[in-house]
Amino acid sequence: MLQPVLIDGEWRNSQGTETFHAINPATREKLEDSFPVSPWEEIEGVIRAADRAFATVREWPGERFASFLEAYATGIEARADDIAEMGNLETALPLSPRLRDVELPRTINQLRQAAAAARTGSWRMPTIDTTVNIRSYLAPIGPVAVFGPNNFPMAFNSIAGGDFAAAVAAGNPVIAKGHPSHPRTTQLFGEVAQKAAEETEMPAGFVQLIYRTSHADGAKLVSHPLLGATGYTGARHAGLTLKEAADKAGNPIYLELSSINPLYILPGALDERQDSIVDEFVTSALMGTGQFCTNPGLVVLKAGESADRFVKAVAEKYSKAPVGTLLGDSTESSLRAGIVALQQAGAEVVVGNQPVENGRCCFSNTLLKASGEAFLANPHGLQAEAFGNATLVITARDEQQMIEITRQLEGNLTGSVYSHTGGVDDAIYDKLVPELRRKVGRLLNDKMPTGVAVSPAMNHGGPYPSTGHPGFTAVGIPAAIRRFGVLQCFDNVRPQRLPDILRDDVEVPGVWRLIDGKWQLG
Amino acid sequence: MLQPVLIDGEWRNSQGTETFHAINPATREKLEDSFPVSPWEEIEGVIRAADRAFATVREWPGERFASFLEAYATGIEARADDIAEMGNLETALPLSPRLRDVELPRTINQLRQAAAAARTGSWRMPTIDTTVNIRSYLAPIGPVAVFGPNNFPMAFNSIAGGDFAAAVAAGNPVIAKGHPSHPRTTQLFGEVAQKAAEETEMPAGFVQLIYRTSHADGAKLVSHPLLGATGYTGARHAGLTLKEAADKAGNPIYLELSSINPLYILPGALDERQDSIVDEFVTSALMGTGQFCTNPGLVVLKAGESADRFVKAVAEKYSKAPVGTLLGDSTESSLRAGIVALQQAGAEVVVGNQPVENGRCCFSNTLLKASGEAFLANPHGLQAEAFGNATLVITARDEQQMIEITRQLEGNLTGSVYSHTGGVDDAIYDKLVPELRRKVGRLLNDKMPTGVAVSPAMNHGGPYPSTGHPGFTAVGIPAAIRRFGVLQCFDNVRPQRLPDILRDDVEVPGVWRLIDGKWQLG
Repeated sequence: MLQPVLIDGEWRNSQGTETFHAINPATREKLEDSFPVSPWEEIEGVIRAADRAFATVREWPGERFASFLEAYATGIEARADDIAEMGNLETALPLSPRLRDVELPRTINQLRQAAAAARTGSWRMPTIDTTVNIRSYLAPIGPVAVFGPNNFPMAFNSIAGGDFAAAVAAGNPVIAKGHPSHPRTTQLFGEVAQKAAEETEMPAGFVQLIYRTSHADGAKLVSHPLLGATGYTGARHAGLTLKEAADKAGNPIYLELSSINPLYILPGALDERQDSIVDEFVTSALMGTGQFCTNPGLVVLKAGESADRFVKAVAEKYSKAPVGTLLGDSTESSLRAGIVALQQAGAEVVVGNQPVENGRCCFSNTLLKASGEAFLANPHGLQAEAFGNATLVITARDEQQMIEITRQLEGNLTGSVYSHTGGVDDAIYDKLVPELRRKVGRLLNDKMPTGVAVSPAMNHGGPYPSTGHPGFTAVGIPAAIRRFGVLQCFDNVRPQRLPDILRDDVEVPGVWRLIDGKWQLG
Repeated sequence: MLQPVLIDGEWRNSQGTETFHAINPATREKLEDSFPVSPWEEIEGVIRAADRAFATVREWPGERFASFLEAYATGIEARADDIAEMGNLETALPLSPRLRDVELPRTINQLRQAAAAARTGSWRMPTIDTTVNIRSYLAPIGPVAVFGPNNFPMAFNSIAGGDFAAAVAAGNPVIAKGHPSHPRTTQLFGEVAQKAAEETEMPAGFVQLIYRTSHADGAKLVSHPLLGATGYTGARHAGLTLKEAADKAGNPIYLELSSINPLYILPGALDERQDSIVDEFVTSALMGTGQFCTNPGLVVLKAGESADRFVKAVAEKYSKAPVGTLLGDSTESSLRAGIVALQQAGAEVVVGNQPVENGRCCFSNTLLKASGEAFLANPHGLQAEAFGNATLVITARDEQQMIEITRQLEGNLTGSVYSHTGGVDDAIYDKLVPELRRKVGRLLNDKMPTGVAVSPAMNHGGPYPSTGHPGFTAVGIPAAIRRFGVLQCFDNVRPQRLPDILRDDVEVPGVWRLIDGKWQLG
């Protein structure tokens, strides 16, 4: 059955004639429902509806957005089983614990954290200078287009995930562009979202959902003059095409792109606790069939017997571990192409690199290796992401070469360093980490990067090209919300015309404000 | 005499063969010194030196940058007369009070405020989540290229102004690209800066100065992989060319571009206190010969007798007021072209639009007017900036048309509204201002926009195309400093390896940190 789009408060039949189906990656079978590709005329209608919704809500207190987010979170809880089952059907990610017990609760938690931030308004950084009577804060930026990725159908879903929650908490309507690999999951969220929007009296067009556009129309959407900003999580090439269009129009765009998340295991740590590190590493690297943004795809070791033992132990575990299902045909084909590209760039397959004939979208767990010399001879080629259950180990000749490798790294979301607990590795750590620190948004010690806590101190961001701007994070409240704000200053504005949060004579309980250089809690 | 460039700690003869002269705008005469156009080879050397300097300083405590900034501020004070006199010679901006008593003290004050911020480190937004042991803060972004404008030879100078101070306070080396209209003023600052850098033991290449590049080399500079970020203040066209290059490379660029700063005088205010508003307006509009980024270049009135009286009164004052000197030949020619363009777009000259034959770079104070209909028929053409002592008054048919005009505005730095003190204008204010608020970074009541206080609550920024991103300000500490930071997170990093400011066991007096959701002063 052809499913409708959510536009201007209604589920409507799309004006488009082109359609697509999702598949079940566990069987490669087409799923029943079909979904429309939205034509430009329809997308423009979506933008105009979002603009009208923004005109209605842009002066609303945070409480209104908090109510919506909370009603939505509660609504998701009530339909959790349906949503998780559909997510499993469309993505083959395990129903439990992954989807039902981890990702969905995380999604609900994010919406509630965003609601709490919207309610207090502290994310706005209200700043008051009484000596000159100048005041400023962050205000909503306008309609936000959210492009969700394939690998987190809930926590990063275009109409339920982190960017959605952040954009709404800042007071913005959202135009969700669902990922075409899990449209029905996205639609279920959309149904709950629209119901919550109606219950909490949000205007029509505050949340809207389309599933697919042409590449050209995606570029027109992010560069539209009525759009406030865009949040995009996904592949690098498509993201950079959108970035170019948005940049040219002067529209902010926040991207979370590919990252190979270099992991260093220093010699002392490898000698001290190899077995436990191997266990931790294999769990992290194969988690979600390696389809995490923070998957440790590049391991750097100092060449030698310990490194050889590590490679051997990981290879054994890779060959014994169950082969997970990938998110779809295209994920499988791009993983296979990525492994070929790494080989062409100088890597050698240790284990895996085999098709698995079981009817699922999958490919054997693959471990590759290359020398430090090989890496330095082709650093670009050996940093190409092979998204999925494949890992490249680089064995550096010596510590100096580890540093040189680090200098050649592109920007990444994370960088992890395991070192000896007794300080044996401290000298190399101190030389290596200043170089690594420049290249990554989050530096970890003795911990795998796959987990991304929803913490105010989190940085799920990093230097280009892991994102489009190194100052912003996609996860963590309130920082993620600030991406969808504009700085607004009020200079000598009469008190009764100021927003409450910037007034001297209105109580603002629970709000942190920077008043005359001092942070104060209202 | 051909003047040297400051590269890698030394004043050197440029490798370039092309040179240029500044002129004295008050006489149109070439000034004595000539300055080099730096070729790409030289610029690349500058970038490499800055990168080396960054490798040295990137882990330094804020105290080191504070010491440099303070020594520099003191050094400028000691050479204040020389610098102000040279500034006057090269720009024809009045020596006193403008340069010697206002802009130079402001410049010194900005450097000292930046030093204080660098010392405490509160600008870094240190955020600690003890429950999960994750910590984050802003760290320096890397070498910053600063392109200074022609109109503030001190407060926005590439090697002394707000962007310079902010970039250094964040811990970054600066590559200053001076404005070619006042190279010797910039060089004097550079001499004091380099001396202060030596006194405070900053590495060679921490501050560097070139005067001019080809457009293509400017684009290569801002997109260079070793560059951290760019701050640019100046004309729109050149700024957007740099933006395109920087965006494509994923290098952050902060732009402060043209702005016509719409000013609304509501009917009640015009009736209530026309004379005083006329006085305030003319002072603001002709200040610095209209060459302020925040010059009120577009006035919106409701048509009628009061509006006619306002236009007449302003016209009289414009024709009687002394004609100020413009910053140079090109400023004069672009002002003349801008006035022609406004006429072609439908504006009519009320007074001025005359060459003044006195040997100076100047053009008569010019007032233009157009109806609301004319504006709505060509909103783009009638928003073209005529930078200098020219103003366009729009008379709107009614209040609804004032709102429609506002909806057609591009992004601006400021928007000002004068209204009746007794509330007569409140109904129209309430309808108009939500539209205006979206279009401007700073909203003023009953105050002209030309003054830009260095306040933590200031926003000297605004929606595109007045800047490249609506979330950032070029003036105001600490916010302006944050532009030159990257978000760095430390996840499970061992305590002794953390920066002091993120540790639990080190005293950090005077530092505001967000610890477990509470702002706390160390």
